[in-house]
Amino acid sequence: MVLGLSRPRAWIFTLGTEVVNGLVVNTNAAFLGRRLALMGFTISGVVSLPDDVDAISSFLSYVLEKYEPDLVVTTGGLGPTYDDITLEAVAKALGKPLVLNEEAYAMVREKYVARGYELTPERLKMAYLPEGAKALPNPVGTAPGAFLVVDRTRVVCLPGVPREMEEMWVKYVEPLIAELAPARVVEGSFTLVGVPESSLAPILRNYVPMYPRVYVKSHPKGLELDAPVLEIYIAVSAPTQEEALKLLRETCEELALKATNIGGRVRDLRC
Amino acid sequence: MVLGLSRPRAWIFTLGTEVVNGLVVNTNAAFLGRRLALMGFTISGVVSLPDDVDAISSFLSYVLEKYEPDLVVTTGGLGPTYDDITLEAVAKALGKPLVLNEEAYAMVREKYVARGYELTPERLKMAYLPEGAKALPNPVGTAPGAFLVVDRTRVVCLPGVPREMEEMWVKYVEPLIAELAPARVVEGSFTLVGVPESSLAPILRNYVPMYPRVYVKSHPKGLELDAPVLEIYIAVSAPTQEEALKLLRETCEELALKATNIGGRVRDLRC
Repeated sequence: MVLGLSRPRAWIFTLGTEVVNGLVVNTNAAFLGRRLALMGFTISGVVSLPDDVDAISSFLSYVLEKYEPDLVVTTGGLGPTYDDITLEAVAKALGKPLVLNEEAYAMVREKYVARGYELTPERLKMAYLPEGAKALPNPVGTAPGAFLVVDRTRVVCLPGVPREMEEMWVKYVEPLIAELAPARVVEGSFTLVGVPESSLAPILRNYVPMYPRVYVKSHPKGLELDAPVLEIYIAVSAPTQEEALKLLRETCEELALKATNIGGRVRDLRC
Repeated sequence: MVLGLSRPRAWIFTLGTEVVNGLVVNTNAAFLGRRLALMGFTISGVVSLPDDVDAISSFLSYVLEKYEPDLVVTTGGLGPTYDDITLEAVAKALGKPLVLNEEAYAMVREKYVARGYELTPERLKMAYLPEGAKALPNPVGTAPGAFLVVDRTRVVCLPGVPREMEEMWVKYVEPLIAELAPARVVEGSFTLVGVPESSLAPILRNYVPMYPRVYVKSHPKGLELDAPVLEIYIAVSAPTQEEALKLLRETCEELALKATNIGGRVRDLRC
């Protein structure tokens, strides 16, 4: 998908054996993908790997070398248990040592000591970040995040607990990466009843390549043949919000008209 | 995670721009991870990529060459629209041409022609599979799946619509890969109230490496310090169901006792 502007490229690593084994549904990937797409990023890939230092570090090295992304975000594996090894793996991939980070140490210390807990090795472990990292506060939980710049890539490491990750993302990470965001992206959708996806396909195939700033995707919600219902999702990008909204409205109207012409009924137009 | 038996290794590719952009939550990855883990597979990684032939084929080639997995499962991108390019990408990665598959052609033809629809190029496209593939019937939708054996790797391509994918998985794919499955895996869990995850961490760190067939993961559900609630998930594998259940019961009892000894309250024991 090309949206017609030079877009920064991001990879998302949602780490944890519980993710690859399907013990949790990966809402972190959806949250981050959505937020990044709206900021104008292209998400080149989302990867989940088990809690294994070698598996994560070698895969991350491959992505950094082969794709040279502008941004890598990791979630999971920052906590106090034996399998929380993300920062060790990230440090290994970046060729940096893990060091006691003063900011992170102060954050961890304050949380535990203020509540009368000892600073055991497991708790202290959360204050070790890759050398050169900035610690990101965790207002909900205890494990700080980490932010690093390595060559052209910004690397952000966040906890895996969704409410911790989401609050840290919005509050601390988006301001740090906003300077990379090139465009306003706006989204719209409508529901199309009575047209099989395979009948709409030629219309989209001809229409979409004409507008590099437009992305259209049909999601089948009914039955392709007996009761076709499609949700048509449209995203457009432009340098300003005003231009983006104008292009979205034009695209929606055009596609709704074409779909009506082949016998479809348009519902729930949100453009 | 080593479960003490030689376990076949699987990669899951959940493909689609709507997945990486977070327009859908990736329930397909969770479903497949869960089913494969219960069959005794190790899931080495889960990858989501946008609908781009080069991105998918080069990434798949990398995984096949570097990891030599026993199984690769793809979901998404089998339908009739311009961006349904998974089979083209898989064929490219495997160095095989896409050819009109007789079984798939019969499946597609029957669905459309029986209902009075023409076989347009978009519909016919769904009958083109990588050379040598077996077509998998789609009882819910129209796009057939594909099953191939390439060197040591079985490659399964399924649609992205969850109810199509899930029915095809259970009905057609599990019987085709059952011969790879080495073990019965059984699962248990309990809730632990009143112990911060960082206090449980040393217990798990010492306990888990002693039992290579046991996997234990703590999921924080409350607040680490003020109101800690942990869900303790336990999976064990053994050559037979009976051995697996025995080992699960022993593990649960042992961990619940250790957690009680450091002040925890055990609830909802399911072992």
